[in-house]
Amino acid sequence: MSIRKGRHGDSPATVAGNGLLDRRALLGRGIALAGAAGASLTSATAEPLTNGPWSLAPGVPVPAYGQPSKYEKKVVRTLSNPSLEPRNSAARTPHHLLNGTITPNGLHFVISRGGETIIDPDQHRFVIHGLVKQPLEWTVDTLHRYPMVSRVTFLECGGNSAPLYSKEPIQANVQAIHGLTSCAEWTGVMLSTLLDEVGVDPNAKWLIAEGADLPTMNRSIPIAKAMNDAMIALYQNGEALNPSNGYPMRLLLPGYEGNMNVKWLRRIKLVESPVMAINETKQYTILLASGKAWQFYYPQEVKSFITRPSPGFNLEGPGFYEISGIAYSGNGRISKVEVSADGGKSWALAALQEPVLSKAHTRFRMGWNWEGGLAILQSRATDEAGNVQPTRDAIIAERGPPRGTPNVAAFTMEHFNAITSWGVGVKGEVSHVYA
Amino acid sequence: MSIRKGRHGDSPATVAGNGLLDRRALLGRGIALAGAAGASLTSATAEPLTNGPWSLAPGVPVPAYGQPSKYEKKVVRTLSNPSLEPRNSAARTPHHLLNGTITPNGLHFVISRGGETIIDPDQHRFVIHGLVKQPLEWTVDTLHRYPMVSRVTFLECGGNSAPLYSKEPIQANVQAIHGLTSCAEWTGVMLSTLLDEVGVDPNAKWLIAEGADLPTMNRSIPIAKAMNDAMIALYQNGEALNPSNGYPMRLLLPGYEGNMNVKWLRRIKLVESPVMAINETKQYTILLASGKAWQFYYPQEVKSFITRPSPGFNLEGPGFYEISGIAYSGNGRISKVEVSADGGKSWALAALQEPVLSKAHTRFRMGWNWEGGLAILQSRATDEAGNVQPTRDAIIAERGPPRGTPNVAAFTMEHFNAITSWGVGVKGEVSHVYA
Repeated sequence: MSIRKGRHGDSPATVAGNGLLDRRALLGRGIALAGAAGASLTSATAEPLTNGPWSLAPGVPVPAYGQPSKYEKKVVRTLSNPSLEPRNSAARTPHHLLNGTITPNGLHFVISRGGETIIDPDQHRFVIHGLVKQPLEWTVDTLHRYPMVSRVTFLECGGNSAPLYSKEPIQANVQAIHGLTSCAEWTGVMLSTLLDEVGVDPNAKWLIAEGADLPTMNRSIPIAKAMNDAMIALYQNGEALNPSNGYPMRLLLPGYEGNMNVKWLRRIKLVESPVMAINETKQYTILLASGKAWQFYYPQEVKSFITRPSPGFNLEGPGFYEISGIAYSGNGRISKVEVSADGGKSWALAALQEPVLSKAHTRFRMGWNWEGGLAILQSRATDEAGNVQPTRDAIIAERGPPRGTPNVAAFTMEHFNAITSWGVGVKGEVSHVYA
Repeated sequence: MSIRKGRHGDSPATVAGNGLLDRRALLGRGIALAGAAGASLTSATAEPLTNGPWSLAPGVPVPAYGQPSKYEKKVVRTLSNPSLEPRNSAARTPHHLLNGTITPNGLHFVISRGGETIIDPDQHRFVIHGLVKQPLEWTVDTLHRYPMVSRVTFLECGGNSAPLYSKEPIQANVQAIHGLTSCAEWTGVMLSTLLDEVGVDPNAKWLIAEGADLPTMNRSIPIAKAMNDAMIALYQNGEALNPSNGYPMRLLLPGYEGNMNVKWLRRIKLVESPVMAINETKQYTILLASGKAWQFYYPQEVKSFITRPSPGFNLEGPGFYEISGIAYSGNGRISKVEVSADGGKSWALAALQEPVLSKAHTRFRMGWNWEGGLAILQSRATDEAGNVQPTRDAIIAERGPPRGTPNVAAFTMEHFNAITSWGVGVKGEVSHVYA
């Protein structure tokens, strides 16, 4: 299989080093972009087709709640703690096997400290109290009396991509490195609506949000965020929240560090100052090269990564490939994604899949003619606030070199949004490299 | 619970008869829209909260592929043929229990003639042949060599909403009446890309698309649609297609009648004239009052329906309610949705949830102060092409009165996009009415 002059048009122009193609290559019209990816047929072989066994017998009854094909069993979350030992559990999204921008609920990433908490919605209560004129309590049903909104937004763990901080490039796939971000359509009641109901005391500057899970997850949130775009989410991709994502209700703080989006939410208390919870003092702070640390560091910074090709894939010979990945920013819309096939020497603009939504995963796509040589694939996102995804070296200069052993260090760095590099070898093998 | 002057602002203005509220009511700021939907607490009861059992013990391990809460067992598709007797199977989406615009894959509607077809993707082949320069065959893997696109679009069975054609209003819920439409983010290869690969003979005016299921579902498609926005879809809401929706690949014809979007797609043949398949001659034609019938009637017309409140819900006393529903058109974007609470005497503009996407479900929302009297709730959508959802009487005038018995007649009318009416009684009970 090789790129060649098309049957019905010209080959697309190269727009950056090592074979990156003009965007016309993504239109696939009048240009020969894929070469002979389809196998040629003679008329004899083309018709009739061979019937598979599924064409000769009835299928199975359509189930009341559909499940993925049994042939997709590898498309699952990887679990860091499948036996629920007394420590954190992480479940990572298999981005290398997905496409589009929505993450199905069964594959949305999870970090939990007490496992998946199973709550009876009829027994659950949600309270707003503290510095308010009138504390109020809601059930799932009474929350449904309020106006709702829907928005597509990503959630990302502050520790996502931390493996990039390790001294040597960890040989792992997208799921292991970047699997702690996901994107869904969330529907619920704006927190500002409920805060208006309780009446906010002017002295209230912070909120403490608390979950009903065993570890009683809690975090401090500035009231400005609460009054801006915070939501009490009840629905995830159209249906009730998944239990691992907070059923029957969670706090949603679009763009902010995942753990602040408190799951299994049971109360919000308005207070004068932050609570200094463990997850804002011991954890989720960022140690700098100076020895000081950033605390209350909320928005997830602009990031992107290539999901395909990526480690675990092997290019099947020279020719056309689509380089595709995800970009997002906790500060708004993605304004552009650049892709390099030569380790950052030259860059070309990727196509962004419309609609490009604020604080949502944005799929980018770039045509590539792999000529069979060494290549280093990178993506670099810029958001509408002008933030540009930094190099790994730039972050390390700011925060100091990895401390401790490679693997331990890797998991003690938050908000690591550096450019990721996938190396492509002459046999088409894809690996994680630092470049 | 009752609407009353708010603690912190004025009540919103009424903008149409029987209590429809100004859009400010949906902002929920500075106005008292919900009254005391939340229960007041004294400081003694507000803190601490009572711990549920789930707050006192660990949860369960996070599963590799998450499932909805066990408390959501009622949120499933209703099945017309759960034992797979030798006839059609329908699985309907429970829109009354969902919110947002995305339909989860497990709840996407299905019509199938041979059950859920289970295909081994490694064995599956897809062919384009007929009036082409070079017939080609693809596997799932080789299709991945092409540029992909993602788009959110609805699919609707031509027979959705047919119960509205029955002589008497069928007492059934949204799922039974309108459950054969769903909306997802689909990702795949543009059909035009592959047609360019095979090289279309100028004599080719139609395509025959054929599935690999037992009944060998096939339909004729005009080549203009194929070259416009048709897609070979591989992903549904980010993951591989659900088996009941065509895994490993299906044709997607945004806005066109559901059955044309051939599932389990195995070939497309380019031909000079339509094949006159059973599903475009005996079925999926529209008998008119004149005795003639419309054939090759493709786009799903502009439609909307209110999902909440709707039959099965009981309003819990006077006060604020959000009237919420879904609008869509096979001809483009929804430009407006109007809501009436007085059976169409007066109308108010509903808020449309952004982003409003072409040929996608659009969620509309309207604030309503139910004063406790009789009400008839209706929604009327208009699309960007200027099409306005008709009344039931208007469609019946065009197509003739229901023939046969009420229940039989209900299921022999395609493309029934009339306005739906929900009656609200003084006890808050919601029923299906003709108005």
